[in-house]
Amino acid sequence: MTAPLHEARPSGAGRTLPDTQQGMRRRNLARVLHAVSAEGSLSRAAVASRIGLTRAAVSTLVDELIRWGLLEELGPERPGRVGRPGSALAVSGRGPAGIGAEIGVDHLAVCAVDLRGEVRARAVRRGANRGRAPGPVIEELTALIHQVVAEAERAELWPAGLAVAVPGLVARDGRTVVRAPNLDWHDLDLGPLLPGHGPLTVDNEANFGALAELWLGAGTPGDFLHVSAEIGIGAAVVVDGRLLRGTRGFAGELGHVPVRPDGPACPCGSRGCLEQYAGEEAVLRAAGLEPRDDRVGLLAERAEAGDERVRAALRDAGTALGIALTGAVNLLDPETVVLGGALAELSPWLLPSLDTELKGRTAGPACPVTVSPLGPQGPLLGAAHSVVRAVLDDPAVVAERS
Amino acid sequence: MTAPLHEARPSGAGRTLPDTQQGMRRRNLARVLHAVSAEGSLSRAAVASRIGLTRAAVSTLVDELIRWGLLEELGPERPGRVGRPGSALAVSGRGPAGIGAEIGVDHLAVCAVDLRGEVRARAVRRGANRGRAPGPVIEELTALIHQVVAEAERAELWPAGLAVAVPGLVARDGRTVVRAPNLDWHDLDLGPLLPGHGPLTVDNEANFGALAELWLGAGTPGDFLHVSAEIGIGAAVVVDGRLLRGTRGFAGELGHVPVRPDGPACPCGSRGCLEQYAGEEAVLRAAGLEPRDDRVGLLAERAEAGDERVRAALRDAGTALGIALTGAVNLLDPETVVLGGALAELSPWLLPSLDTELKGRTAGPACPVTVSPLGPQGPLLGAAHSVVRAVLDDPAVVAERS
Repeated sequence: MTAPLHEARPSGAGRTLPDTQQGMRRRNLARVLHAVSAEGSLSRAAVASRIGLTRAAVSTLVDELIRWGLLEELGPERPGRVGRPGSALAVSGRGPAGIGAEIGVDHLAVCAVDLRGEVRARAVRRGANRGRAPGPVIEELTALIHQVVAEAERAELWPAGLAVAVPGLVARDGRTVVRAPNLDWHDLDLGPLLPGHGPLTVDNEANFGALAELWLGAGTPGDFLHVSAEIGIGAAVVVDGRLLRGTRGFAGELGHVPVRPDGPACPCGSRGCLEQYAGEEAVLRAAGLEPRDDRVGLLAERAEAGDERVRAALRDAGTALGIALTGAVNLLDPETVVLGGALAELSPWLLPSLDTELKGRTAGPACPVTVSPLGPQGPLLGAAHSVVRAVLDDPAVVAERS
Repeated sequence: MTAPLHEARPSGAGRTLPDTQQGMRRRNLARVLHAVSAEGSLSRAAVASRIGLTRAAVSTLVDELIRWGLLEELGPERPGRVGRPGSALAVSGRGPAGIGAEIGVDHLAVCAVDLRGEVRARAVRRGANRGRAPGPVIEELTALIHQVVAEAERAELWPAGLAVAVPGLVARDGRTVVRAPNLDWHDLDLGPLLPGHGPLTVDNEANFGALAELWLGAGTPGDFLHVSAEIGIGAAVVVDGRLLRGTRGFAGELGHVPVRPDGPACPCGSRGCLEQYAGEEAVLRAAGLEPRDDRVGLLAERAEAGDERVRAALRDAGTALGIALTGAVNLLDPETVVLGGALAELSPWLLPSLDTELKGRTAGPACPVTVSPLGPQGPLLGAAHSVVRAVLDDPAVVAERS
């Protein structure tokens, strides 16, 4: 089984090294960088007390991180404090940047995020990609990537890696799209098609959406189930702050959990899957609406306007989601369920019936359901931040490459 | 969230220490002990090459482990090999032992397992515990524990901890039985009731069954879903060789995954749960059988004898299991599903319909289903081995206590 490249695993890279002095030093470099990153700015002494190393050890590590351009000194702290003034450290706003990209069914998007977590460049192109051959889509995406990288470079940033969110299943090699039904792409290795901007990671949009929630969500716990939708229904399971990927990388296929085992046939080969009740096409059909480009917008607009047929369709979708989530909550016992992506936008009409079902089927206190504030931005931000996290988790890699 | 005490996490304890020289030393002691344990016997040189440390470093660690009574020297290796003869090391068959106990609905059992993984003492008492007050049950269990510990002590073993498997949900404190419906126990802290034989861990029988499969199963992968049954249906999820416990410690409740959302009411408050189709009582009812003490034996006996009503009941239970497992496999993407406990015994009559359902509902290759060779022994062995693993994972703890 191939280990995923980028994951919410602090100091993850160090753990694959033998437990030697070198491995320990790499992990401690990551600890220092994470400590400063978490606080915005910190003195050397504060870093030392936070991570339990001596001030001298921390100073050596900090000097290294400054030499690599990952930390910078903000100058002496304001006077009036007791003791010798220390110089405050901050994560650099120049240097490595994470390049995130998203191949959506209705859009392409790219952004650059610096080590401080700020989006420094962004480019979006609307337009239906459904059924288009991969070649022209990747060409357009590559043009957007070049545009964003050029803008980042003008701000003294350099790409530390490229992460691409796709609406489909990705193999554990982190490059091959096994199946993206709404693009009609199959067994496609994106590696040779994309420009080289450091290490490449391709992952499912639901996974990146969940990681964004984990890293950027306010107060998101380390154990949650993230449910999102663009055309299909995707989910991602986060346990102890780590994404559960599954043996083949296919975990989180909530859309094909059987809701009514004798229900309508699903293209996956089963019957009565969640997607047959709560997928966008099923909901549009139940609502009596013709698909257009912005399907979610259409549903939200009509529900907002009080269209009873649309509201009933969304209510039924919420019920089906509640049944499938009851099974998932029984299996995983997450701290919360987070609705992201398109489901966040539609949550006012989905949540009441979803909640009723989940509460009615749960002995004891039901698992709370919350709505992601990131919504449709999640996958793109998650992709870019995954590159940033990889640098924070093993800063020595930057030194090896620069 | 409280970290579980014993888990399939090599060198787990070391990771909670700061990444210092001491923490590294503790992890390396565990590596040496694990390396010898995995091979039965090894020379110092072989240990060094296996774990990537120098021969000198390994010798210091080995001397420490011998001083603590965890390793022993078997004397010089047989001549005829090239080079200076090295003394082969083996894990000690004296010293610390794991005491495992099981509170079953129809029996109590206790065993002692040495560091080599051998069962050195065992005691079992048949008799229905359903509806009995905890007091007398724990008293009987305590008598069995004393008997097994006395026998172990005669073999120069000492109890390094006690682990107790219960048929119910256990809080993440690893002591409190939140709910054991078939015993009718609720919110019961077993800590003050059980004898002190080192650290105590109470856990769900399905969890210990899955850990036994992970540690003792031949060729069991690190990612699997373990499904077992005594009266209810329990499951345990193992990911990357670790048990997924859930926020409250309640993960793995496969028995309450909705199979037919409008099906019969379940005591859990929901409708159409798996247990309403594949739980022991539902199957006995469908088979037209009166419950007796050994229910699983009764079903197996009648099915073996060709009773068509019993076979049909088991076939339908297999179908329901297949539907619930389709959902679980879609969510978790495990490498295999393992049937353990009573389900292992009944597998000849469950598997065909279960497999048909799972294959028919899965796009691409279906997740393989295997039968555990440990069967009903799993939870007791898993409990005892969890104590042994805790010693192998952080041998320094033994030195602190002895």
